[in-house]
Order: sequence, then structure tokens, then C-alpha cells
Amino acid sequence: MSVLESLTTRSDLTPQRSDKFAFGLWTVGWTAGDPFGVPTRSRLDVVEAVERLAALGAYGLTFHDDDLFAFGSSDDQRRREIGRLAAVLGSTGMVVPMVTTNLFSHPVFKDGGFTSNDRGVRRFALRKVLRNIDLAAELGAQTFVLWGGREGSEYDSAKDVRAALARYREALDLLGDYVTDQGLPLRFAIEPKPNEPRGDILLPTVGHALAFIETLARPELFGVNPEAGHEQMAGLNFLHGISQAMDRGKLFHIDLNGQRGIKFDQDLVFGHGDLINAFSLVDLLENGGAGGGPSYDGPRHFDYKPSRTEDSAGVWASAAANMRMYLLLKQRAAAFRADPEVAEALAGARVDELRRPTLDSAEGYRDLLDDRSSFEEFDAESYYDGRGFGFVRLNQLAVEHLMGAR
Amino acid sequence: MSVLESLTTRSDLTPQRSDKFAFGLWTVGWTAGDPFGVPTRSRLDVVEAVERLAALGAYGLTFHDDDLFAFGSSDDQRRREIGRLAAVLGSTGMVVPMVTTNLFSHPVFKDGGFTSNDRGVRRFALRKVLRNIDLAAELGAQTFVLWGGREGSEYDSAKDVRAALARYREALDLLGDYVTDQGLPLRFAIEPKPNEPRGDILLPTVGHALAFIETLARPELFGVNPEAGHEQMAGLNFLHGISQAMDRGKLFHIDLNGQRGIKFDQDLVFGHGDLINAFSLVDLLENGGAGGGPSYDGPRHFDYKPSRTEDSAGVWASAAANMRMYLLLKQRAAAFRADPEVAEALAGARVDELRRPTLDSAEGYRDLLDDRSSFEEFDAESYYDGRGFGFVRLNQLAVEHLMGAR
Amino acid sequence: MSVLESLTTRSDLTPQRSDKFAFGLWTVGWTAGDPFGVPTRSRLDVVEAVERLAALGAYGLTFHDDDLFAFGSSDDQRRREIGRLAAVLGSTGMVVPMVTTNLFSHPVFKDGGFTSNDRGVRRFALRKVLRNIDLAAELGAQTFVLWGGREGSEYDSAKDVRAALARYREALDLLGDYVTDQGLPLRFAIEPKPNEPRGDILLPTVGHALAFIETLARPELFGVNPEAGHEQMAGLNFLHGISQAMDRGKLFHIDLNGQRGIKFDQDLVFGHGDLINAFSLVDLLENGGAGGGPSYDGPRHFDYKPSRTEDSAGVWASAAANMRMYLLLKQRAAAFRADPEVAEALAGARVDELRRPTLDSAEGYRDLLDDRSSFEEFDAESYYDGRGFGFVRLNQLAVEHLMGAR
Amino acid sequence: MSVLESLTTRSDLTPQRSDKFAFGLWTVGWTAGDPFGVPTRSRLDVVEAVERLAALGAYGLTFHDDDLFAFGSSDDQRRREIGRLAAVLGSTGMVVPMVTTNLFSHPVFKDGGFTSNDRGVRRFALRKVLRNIDLAAELGAQTFVLWGGREGSEYDSAKDVRAALARYREALDLLGDYVTDQGLPLRFAIEPKPNEPRGDILLPTVGHALAFIETLARPELFGVNPEAGHEQMAGLNFLHGISQAMDRGKLFHIDLNGQRGIKFDQDLVFGHGDLINAFSLVDLLENGGAGGGPSYDGPRHFDYKPSRTEDSAGVWASAAANMRMYLLLKQRAAAFRADPEVAEALAGARVDELRRPTLDSAEGYRDLLDDRSSFEEFDAESYYDGRGFGFVRLNQLAVEHLMGAR
Repeated sequence: MSVLESLTTRSDLTPQRSDKFAFGLWTVGWTAGDPFGVPTRSRLDVVEAVERLAALGAYGLTFHDDDLFAFGSSDDQRRREIGRLAAVLGSTGMVVPMVTTNLFSHPVFKDGGFTSNDRGVRRFALRKVLRNIDLAAELGAQTFVLWGGREGSEYDSAKDVRAALARYREALDLLGDYVTDQGLPLRFAIEPKPNEPRGDILLPTVGHALAFIETLARPELFGVNPEAGHEQMAGLNFLHGISQAMDRGKLFHIDLNGQRGIKFDQDLVFGHGDLINAFSLVDLLENGGAGGGPSYDGPRHFDYKPSRTEDSAGVWASAAANMRMYLLLKQRAAAFRADPEVAEALAGARVDELRRPTLDSAEGYRDLLDDRSSFEEFDAESYYDGRGFGFVRLNQLAVEHLMGAR
Repeated sequence: MSVLESLTTRSDLTPQRSDKFAFGLWTVGWTAGDPFGVPTRSRLDVVEAVERLAALGAYGLTFHDDDLFAFGSSDDQRRREIGRLAAVLGSTGMVVPMVTTNLFSHPVFKDGGFTSNDRGVRRFALRKVLRNIDLAAELGAQTFVLWGGREGSEYDSAKDVRAALARYREALDLLGDYVTDQGLPLRFAIEPKPNEPRGDILLPTVGHALAFIETLARPELFGVNPEAGHEQMAGLNFLHGISQAMDRGKLFHIDLNGQRGIKFDQDLVFGHGDLINAFSLVDLLENGGAGGGPSYDGPRHFDYKPSRTEDSAGVWASAAANMRMYLLLKQRAAAFRADPEVAEALAGARVDELRRPTLDSAEGYRDLLDDRSSFEEFDAESYYDGRGFGFVRLNQLAVEHLMGAR
Repeated sequence: MSVLESLTTRSDLTPQRSDKFAFGLWTVGWTAGDPFGVPTRSRLDVVEAVERLAALGAYGLTFHDDDLFAFGSSDDQRRREIGRLAAVLGSTGMVVPMVTTNLFSHPVFKDGGFTSNDRGVRRFALRKVLRNIDLAAELGAQTFVLWGGREGSEYDSAKDVRAALARYREALDLLGDYVTDQGLPLRFAIEPKPNEPRGDILLPTVGHALAFIETLARPELFGVNPEAGHEQMAGLNFLHGISQAMDRGKLFHIDLNGQRGIKFDQDLVFGHGDLINAFSLVDLLENGGAGGGPSYDGPRHFDYKPSRTEDSAGVWASAAANMRMYLLLKQRAAAFRADPEVAEALAGARVDELRRPTLDSAEGYRDLLDDRSSFEEFDAESYYDGRGFGFVRLNQLAVEHLMGAR
Repeated sequence: MSVLESLTTRSDLTPQRSDKFAFGLWTVGWTAGDPFGVPTRSRLDVVEAVERLAALGAYGLTFHDDDLFAFGSSDDQRRREIGRLAAVLGSTGMVVPMVTTNLFSHPVFKDGGFTSNDRGVRRFALRKVLRNIDLAAELGAQTFVLWGGREGSEYDSAKDVRAALARYREALDLLGDYVTDQGLPLRFAIEPKPNEPRGDILLPTVGHALAFIETLARPELFGVNPEAGHEQMAGLNFLHGISQAMDRGKLFHIDLNGQRGIKFDQDLVFGHGDLINAFSLVDLLENGGAGGGPSYDGPRHFDYKPSRTEDSAGVWASAAANMRMYLLLKQRAAAFRADPEVAEALAGARVDELRRPTLDSAEGYRDLLDDRSSFEEFDAESYYDGRGFGFVRLNQLAVEHLMGAR
């Protein structure tokens, strides 16, 4: 019996509530209009969405305000839809771990929300978000995601970026004040994206968002919600971005999906893009903790789009595919970590040696300067034609585990 | 006489020391070997480099240790070259505003310096840098640049990125301790790059570097040295990155050059890549301050490569071209800012309105919630078929000024 | 008086019918819905479009069938709109140099038109195009553009690309038969695009389209309609693609617009993206012919989108900006070609020497093999530290002319 | 026993001569210098290279002239190395299926070979290639690869692309004359690349090369040698490019390797980049023929670089990894094609329906126009909320087979 077989059984591939799989209402509910085509599917009612997702094994639904009730709905309309959602959550046991607000679809936000050049729009945007924060809290969400997809520009002279960052900060600080004063148990997660729909979006990557958070009045309330495809649209390694967010304790939420290179935002099923990077990501999330356990315990949130070619059957097949991909990759990552040959290759590549501090515990720079073995007597030339790292072999082992070939 | 003519004269295009133009010794000194070809030019001596650059109007030279004396030089060899450099600085009046250390060329650094999986390499790297910091201070440099071009990976399993960031932090904190204890008047500037020579480099963008700085023990000592081409290799808007760095007071140094899109690192002459973005960048540096004056007063440092097709005459023509491009763009940006039609278009685009806080000075979120004009009575629908921003017209004016067409 | 001043006057910047500027009805008529937002502008009537464009100096309007009358229109509705268009063409003197058919917006085309996996769809697509070819001929168009934006795939296993190319060929051959038999004076121009809305589009670049044309039954009827932004979405140099199309006599039509790097399809105003490449393109179109005159005499067709931030005033300002950019670049290119210093730099760079055949007119490979000066006595080493090409200086002259700085 | 197990055994993963695995001498022999670092490995002798590759199961070695004997070698030096190669080929049974010539490393080629602006260089380049063609024929190679890596430009004005294409054509036509007259059994394969080392390279993609071939005097002698990473550097789908080359019978040779997105040329091990695309490529090569058998019978040539971090052990581990990846993917592709559920999903996705011509065998456009079911009575609206293609499910099956999960 292979290592893989000893670790897994077919039943591991059935999603469980404990897997914390969540979907946006706008994902399975996407009606498949795109820049060059009208919708190919009709609107999905929230009750059907929750019931179907629950049946497939998901535990959570997330949404923007405008997903649930149209922009400009009356209080009655709003309440009616909230009531229907609450009822189906109750009947299915599904939860709403995250809520977000749409500041990008309506014409009023054509130059952004919090950073529109138009001050009236900025005030309106704040009001719209405050209103939806109350709803998020009411529904028991822990995280409020902020995707500022329209906060940006196409033309360099048209946006004073320093002023825009100041207004962004002003807005987020106000939201921080609000949840603090109201005692709402919510944290905010900024979702970066480099471009689309704007030519350049502010806070384009995980790094920019993390840096910006440090300038806020209440940085502890703010983290990031990285999306795989968004980082990959900038050619960046998603695993690296997630790791830097974790280094600062800022991985508040995560958006899993697939992207095939630098192009428009594809929102494919998780794993249907850069499969190797998806493997190493799941390995980090599931096996990257101090004791080898999970390093992230929040929702595994899929922010994808069922392709425009699909009808309703394809929508639900694609939803299931996301979860199955995650579980398959989790199996493969477990086998990778359990393989003695991998352990040996990791040692050869000195991967663990990087966890050991460069200086001894009592050392300072003076000791280092006094240590002739570190410089004067160090044999730098032995790294020519020697002291190889064996990285290719290690990667080959990873890919073979990913492929279930060991 | 046009606005442009009233503002400029031909003599404005002659570089002056006060322009603070600086070049890396490795730029004009590049011997033009690349991944597919051997050098096409012989080594440039530092004395000739300084004399030529001085004659062209530059004020500063920068270098890596290995540019001045070969890796592994004896103390005598090292001292001889430092002496020759000091002499020609004295005779020409040139300065050394910045120094940096090469942790990427020698085989010992094949997996990086501060974050190599190999602890001995990490210690050696620290020693190499400490040694060069002393030299930087001796030569009067204000800034010590850290480009971690080998700090990265090709394979996800081969690098524990969180451990790597911990070691990076350990290294930078040690450097911070050193200059503080020794009373050296140096600040550090991290230079981000997304990839090349590594498949993925740590701290890949300005954003990631800014975020990382906030995790250091002495963040006040660390800023960024953004390079135009490096941000553009990730498809990011250089102006935006510079603006975010300025927002935090972290633009310690800047590397100007040209890049034509997402591909290998081209290091073209400044302005020979994305010309429109170069225009808006110079506009920001020269006219973006509070009173309309310079927002950055450090060196205008060119980190470019004279193309491999060029001989010595082409090397110096290209060096001159960098400075001329900067001065031309500075002229154009001045004319743009002085044009009443531009002022009117900026007002129409509500660019200045973004500098006005979204809330009144005495307002808090409660006041905003009470302001019915901000939401209940706000006419969001008027942004449909109305309230346009006029951004295209504004951009057209910018491009026309760039083209000297107004 | 500068070279530039001697060549141009302000009046050169007023568009004339002889400039052959044309616009798609879908460009100024774009209602500005995008993947993340609903329209911000209402529908533009074709009569207003033609009148406005005529007033701005354009000479032509182009359209897809669905732009003029909705998908599924009755014959009466269709005829009514055609009649209204014909009338306003008559009253304004505008022409319709090109027509195209929409095989991408309606759900029926969700897997493409000519290459849909669904044979019924393929037959329907052919019928739709045949019907619109008749209309194109009726309106006097010379070119029928084929943009196969939905001909492609997201998933490798879902599309047999060789079969798809066979079906594509079958369709185009049928169209060729049709116009030949009917004696219609139309030529077809394939418009390549690498991706969006499909993950990968068939015939993704000018090169792929040119190669495909050679496999058709009537290749003489087919050429290309390259779009600046589409080639740049693949990181390719638009000038190079246009040059290769011209090398084969296949530049039947051209789509001018702006794109800022590899990302979603931006459709900015011409010149608002890669300005330097726009300059060299106009130089080729206007000055690249045998005698230094135009090398292309077809429509200068703008396929752009007025940004979503703009209202009606911004739409027309952006339309005017396209033409003004072209005329400005034409001025600059003329000055560049007239400058004696440029001529001298071109000679130094041996640019003209490339037009001279490598072998003498009577030479064959045997003569070359006998010519010892070509190899045995050739001084290859003189290209080290010598025989530089002076390309950077030449480029600097080009950029200075582009900037009106000489 | 799973479908996979029934089809494969462990021994399938041992490379055989019949697998036709070949390596460039410059691949395992790369000394690992890059733009920012000196070599980390010493030169590999050709005898050791051949012996080691033979022992690993490869069948072929390929090389550039300069790989085997240094540029400028005397006839004696040249003959000596050729003799040593011939001897080890004899003793190991290895073959040389392909040879190529280096027109890019030496300073003389700094502006290219066949398209250098310098006519003397162009003549020298032709002589160098003619000389190496003789060697290729002597060693029994069937294919002569032409990678024009320096044929290109950085600056638009510095290269008359139409003239360059004319010179390229002149050169290739001369080579075609030569092998025809000499009766050499060689075909030429053009290897496209979009950029690096030049800013833009001529014939940047498979499409451009295919188009260019049609303009040659003897097109039948010329095909393409696509490299996975090169197409992916332009964001293009490698499978699509290969399919278009096959559509024209032009896949003369193939370069397999790995690339992680749009960036510098990585030359990773095959499959270590876009794994899903590698899977579908092997599926095409092995199972895409008429009867489900191989659609390509030439060498499986690996053009990769052992990472710079590796020492000699890593070099050979990486060489072996390329072959193992190919064989693993071949197994997976066989299982995919044998799975009844896949067959059912392919039918649902109507993939095979695309092989059926759109018109019946006796139909012409007149019949199509008469077929009311194709248009007037066609139910286009049924594609809204219906007639989905099931592409996501099919892709999920493909990925599961790739992962050995079925």
C-alpha cells in the first residue's frame, strides 16, 4: 500500500462542514455577462443557492449587498430578502462567515467609492458600507471584505494617488471607529487586485495592502483577503504573498480560484490554473503550521465564475469541482509531507536550516565580526561545482506527489 | 510665445550638479554579456567613468563593492581601488551618494545571501555587507541600497518563505543595530524586483517592501529604492508605487530607467520605455510637493544598461540621453502645470477635490449617518449619462504637453 | 524656425476627409458596461453618431450588424435602421468603408460561431454572416472584418484545435466562394486577439492569422485587420506585426487604439498607451512607402472605448483626441524624417544597409563560399569594443522628435 | 484495479531509446552564468554528456557548433572534437537527430546574423551556417534548427522590419538552395521566441514563423521547432500553437521545457511550469493521431536549463526528471483517453462534433441559404439557460487523471 493509500480513503473527498468551504452568492449566481457578451444564464435565487451549496457540502455563503437586494432597494425589499436568507440559513445550517459591499457596479462609483474624485460619492460610499456592516454583524459574519475594484485610474494625471491613499485611510479609519464603538465583532480584509476594471487599481497586490494597513489608526482590525488569480494577474507567486501575509498575522480570509497567466481576470475553478502553485498553497494552509498542522483556520472561500459556456448543471458541477480539487490537493500534500524520501530531499536542500536563526542566540554583530570562520576562513569557492541545493529533485518529488505518482 | 517657450530655454537641457544626476558604475561599465551572449565591451575603469560622467554633468557615482574591486580582493587591492576612486572624486567634485553590495553574482550566493537556505552563506553575506557599509560611510554616502536579487526561489517547496522573511528581518535588524551603534549617518533603501534572476524574488514590489519594513526593529532606518523597470515587470504603474512610498515618507532613493512591458529586465534609457508614465513621474518628483515644488530631493539615479549593440561612443551617448530625457520631461511637466486649460480640466475632473477630506473637520461617522444628503437624498442616478469626469480630455492635454504640442 | 515649424502649421491638426479617419459605431456608442459594472451611458443613435463624427472630421463609420439593429430583428426593423443610416450617410457625405458581424455577444455563440463545438451554431453563424455581407456590399464597404472573439477555449481538452481550424477554414472558404460567385467587391480582414473573452482565442496574433490565410482556398481575398492593443496584450511589438503583414501585402485594414501593457483589453485612445510605438507606427504608415510616402492607404480606423468615467461630452472629446493624436504623430514623424541629423544617425546605424541584399545580384551560395573576405578573412573580433550601431542615439533622436524637442 | 493501473506499470517510467528523448549539449552543459551571476559549474565535456545521457535512457544529443568547439576554432580543433563526438556516439549508440548554429553569442552578432544591419555580418553568418550544415549532414541529423535569437531590435527606428524579413528570406532561400543542390537530407525548423535577448525578436511566435515560411522559395523544406516556454512568454497556449503547426504539417521538431508565466526565459524541467498544459500537450503528441496513436514521431527534445543552484548531481537528476515527467504524463493521458466517463463527457461537450464538417458533403452556400432550419427556424434562444457545454466537468476529469485520482 502506497503512502498515499495509507493516508487517504475515497471518503476524504466528500466535503464536510468542517472543511469550511464557502462560496460567494455572486459566483454560482453569476449570470455570465462579460465585456463582449450578454448573460447566458438567468438569476439564481439566494434560497436555491444556499440549499444547493449545502447539499454539496459547503458550510458558508458570502455576498455583496447588491447580490441579495438590488441597488436602491427599499427597506421593505431589503428586509424581505434578508429574511429569506436567514430562513434558509436556519433550515440548512449554513453560515455567513463573510459579507462585503459593492462599490463598483453602479454608475455612481465610476471613479471609485472611497477614493472617487467626487466627494459626494465618497460620502455615499461610506454610508452604503456602514449600512452593510450592520447587516454583516446581524448575520454573524466575522469578516468584512473590502475589494476596491474601482479605486484606481486609467490616466496618471487624473488621480492624485497620495490624496487617494489619504481618503482611503480616512474611510477605513472611520469604519474602524464604527465597529469599535458599536462593539461589532468584525474584522476587515482588504482584497488587492492590480487592474480590471480600472487600468490600475490602488493597493494592487498583497504587499501594497499590507503596507497600507500599517498606516491605519487601528491596524489590528485590518488584514487581507488575497485572491489567487489577482496576484497571478501581476505575475506574482500566490504562495509568496500568502506567506508574507501570514508573517504579519494578516491572513484574515482567502479567495481560492484559478488563473492561466497574465491576462483578464478568469476566475476559473481552484486548481484549474497554476496547479503546482495550488498544490503548494494547500500544503501551506494545511501542513504549514508550527507542528505541521493547519496554518490557517478560516473559510476556504471560492471566488470563481462558472464558465459562460455552462448551463445550470455546469454551474453546480463547477462548484463541486472547487471543493474536490481542494480535498485532492490536501491528500496529495499530506502524502508529500509523509514521504521519507521527501524528508531526505528537504534536508539535502537545507530547507529546514532556514528556520534556524543566522546568529546564535547570544550573538550580536560584534560576535559575528569576530568569527573568522564566517568570512576570513569561509570557503566561498566551494560553492562552485559543489554544495548544490538539489532543488530540482525536490520539486520533482513534489510534482510526483501532486500527480499521485508515488 | 507658447507657455512652453516662456518657461524654458535651451540651456535648461544642460545637466547641472544641482540636478543631482547619478549613475551606477555598473551601468556605463556594463560589459554587455547577457544570457545568450558574451561581453561586447571591455571593462571600464572607475577613474574614466567618474571623469566622463562629471564632464557630462552628473554629480554622483554609485557602486557595488564588486564593481570597484573583484570579489575576494586582498585588503591591498581593495585599498588601492578605493584610493583611486577617492582621488578622482576629489579632482572632479563628484560625490558618492549611494553604495550597495553585491550578494548575487558569485556562486556562493546561488540561493541568495541573507535568505540562503545555507546558514554559512547567510553569515558570510552579513559580513560582506557590514564591510561595505563601512566603506559607504567612509565615502560619505547617505543611502545604502539593498537589492536582494537572489533572495527567492524557483520551486515552491524549496523555500520556506516565512522562514526566509524571518531571516531577512534578522539580517536587516542587525544592519540597523550596526549603523546605530557606530553612529553612521546611513539609511537603507530596499530595491524590489518581481523576478529575474530568481523565478520569484522575495519582496517583489514596492508594496511588499514597504510592508516588510514595518516589521523591522528600526523601521525609521529603512525605506525603498524603487526601479521603474522592476515595477513595470509586474505590470504595475510606477507612479502609483512611488506615490505609496511617498505617502509613508519612504522614498529614500529612486532608480530611473526604461522598460517596454512585461518581459526580461531591459534597463533601457529613462523615457525610452513607457514615456507617458515617465512624464507623470517627473511631474510628481518635480511638481508634486505641497507648494507645487519638488516632492523628492534625493539623487536622480539612472540604473540602466547601454544596449549590447553599442560601443564606447554609444555608452556615453546613452548616459547623456538619460539626463536629457529627464530635463526634457521636467520642462514639459512645468508647462503642463502652468497651462490654464489644464487647470480648468483638472478642476472639471475634480482632481483637487480628492485632497479635501471626505468628512468635515468636526464630523464623525455619527454626523455622516445623520446627513440625509449623503445617502437618503443623494442622487446616485445623476451619474448615469451625467457627471462625467473628463479624464480623457485631461489625459489628452497631458500627452500634448509631453509632445510639446501646446 | 525649427524643422518642425517649417513642416507643419496648426491647420494640419484639423481632421480632413482625406485623412480617412473612421470609427466603429460600437466605439462612440459603447454604453460602458464592463465585467464589474452596468452601463453608465445610454444608447447612442446611429444618426447622431454619424452627424457628430462627420462634424469632427471623420470620413467613415463602421458597424456590426447587432450595433445597428438588435439580434433577432425583423426584416422591417432591419430595413428601417438601414434606411436611417443610408439617409444620414447621404446627408453628411460619410462612407461605410468596413462592416463586420457580431458572432460573440448572444448566448448562442457562447462556444464561438464558426468553430463552436455545436454544428447547428456553426451553420447559424454562417447564415448570419452571409446576410451581413450582403448589407456590407449594399452600403459600399470594401472590407469585411472577421473578429472571432469567441472562437477559442478555456480548457485544453474541450476544444480540438485542429478540428477547429478545419471548421474555421471551411467557413472562410465558403465566404470566399460566396463573394466571388456573387461578384461582390469585398475583401475579408481577420482580426487577431490572444484572449478575452475566451481564455485562449484561435488565431491569437497577426502571425497566426497570416499563416492561416495561406491555408485557405482563396488566400487573395483574405488579409488582416490588426489592432494595436490586441498585439500588445501578447507583449508583441505592433510595428513588427504590421510590418510582417505588409511584407505579404496583407494589411487590408487597421485598428488603432491604446493599451498599457499586458492586461485586459483597454481600448484607450490611440497614443494613450505605448506612445513611442504609436509614433513609429504612424511613421511607417505615412512615410514607409517606396518613395517615402504612405505605405498604407486604407482607413485609419479607431477601435477604442470612451472610458466608463465619461459622459457624452467626454465621448466626443475622446473621439476627437484619436484623430488629433494621429495628426500630431504624423507631424512629428515628418519632422523626424526631414532632420539631417536623423539621416546621419540612420546611416551610422546602417539601417539602410539592411535594404541591400546580402548577396550581390549575380551571386549564389557558391560565390559566397568562394569569397574569403566573407569568412576566412572576416574580422569578427573588430565587433568587440568597436563597430557599435549607435541605436540608442538614434532612438533618442526619435523620442525628441516625438516630443517636439528638435 | 483502476483504469490507470490497468494501463501502466512502473516499468513504463524507464526511458527507452524508442521514446526518442534528446537533449541539447548546451542544456546539461549549461555552466549557469546568468545576467546577474557568473557560472556556478564548470564546462561539461561532450563525451561525458553523451555517456551520461545514454545511461539515463536518452537516444539523442543535439548541439550548436559553438557548444562543441569554440567560436573561431581551427580546422584541427574542430575535427578533433567532431571525432570525439563521433566516437562516443558509436560506443553508446546515441544519435544526433538535430544540429543548430550559434548566431547569437559572439559580439559580431550583436545586431543579429541573417538580419544584422551590417551586411558583412550577414555574409559571415551565412558562411557559418553553411559550414555547420555540412557537419549536421555528416552526423546524420534530419533537422537543422534555426533560432534567430538576435534577429530583432530594441528600438523601432533602428530596424526596418520589412527589410529584415526580406534579408531573412534571402538567407533561408539560400540555405534551401544549398541543401537541395547538395542533396542533403536535411529539413529546417525555425524556432520562434518573442523577446530576450533582444527587446523584440523577429518571428516572435509559431504563427509568425508559419506565415513567414509560406513566403519562402522552398516552403516544403521549412517547418517550426516550437519551444513551450517561448510561446508561454507571450502568454500563448502552447497546445494551440502546436496544433496550428500540425494543421499545416509543419511540426518538424519540438522543444519541451517549463515556464512559470510571462517573464524571462526560465527553461525549467518539462512539466515544472504549466503542468495542465504539459498534460494536454503530451496527450496530443501521443494520442492525437488519426487512430488515437501518436500525432508526432520526431524527437522529444528537452531544451531546458538545470537551475543555477544545482551541482553536477542536480544536473543529472534534472535531466532524468524531464524524461520521467514525459512518461508520467503519457501514462496519465492514456488513462484519460481510456476512461468511459471521459468519453461520455467529451460527447456531452460535443468535442467530436467539431470534426464533422459544418456543411454536408454535397452542400454549398446555396443549400445552406435554403435550409430554413439553419437560420429562420433555428432556436437561438435555447442557448440561454440551456444547451450548456459541460466544459468545466470535462476539465475536472482531465485534471483528476493528471493527478492520478481516477
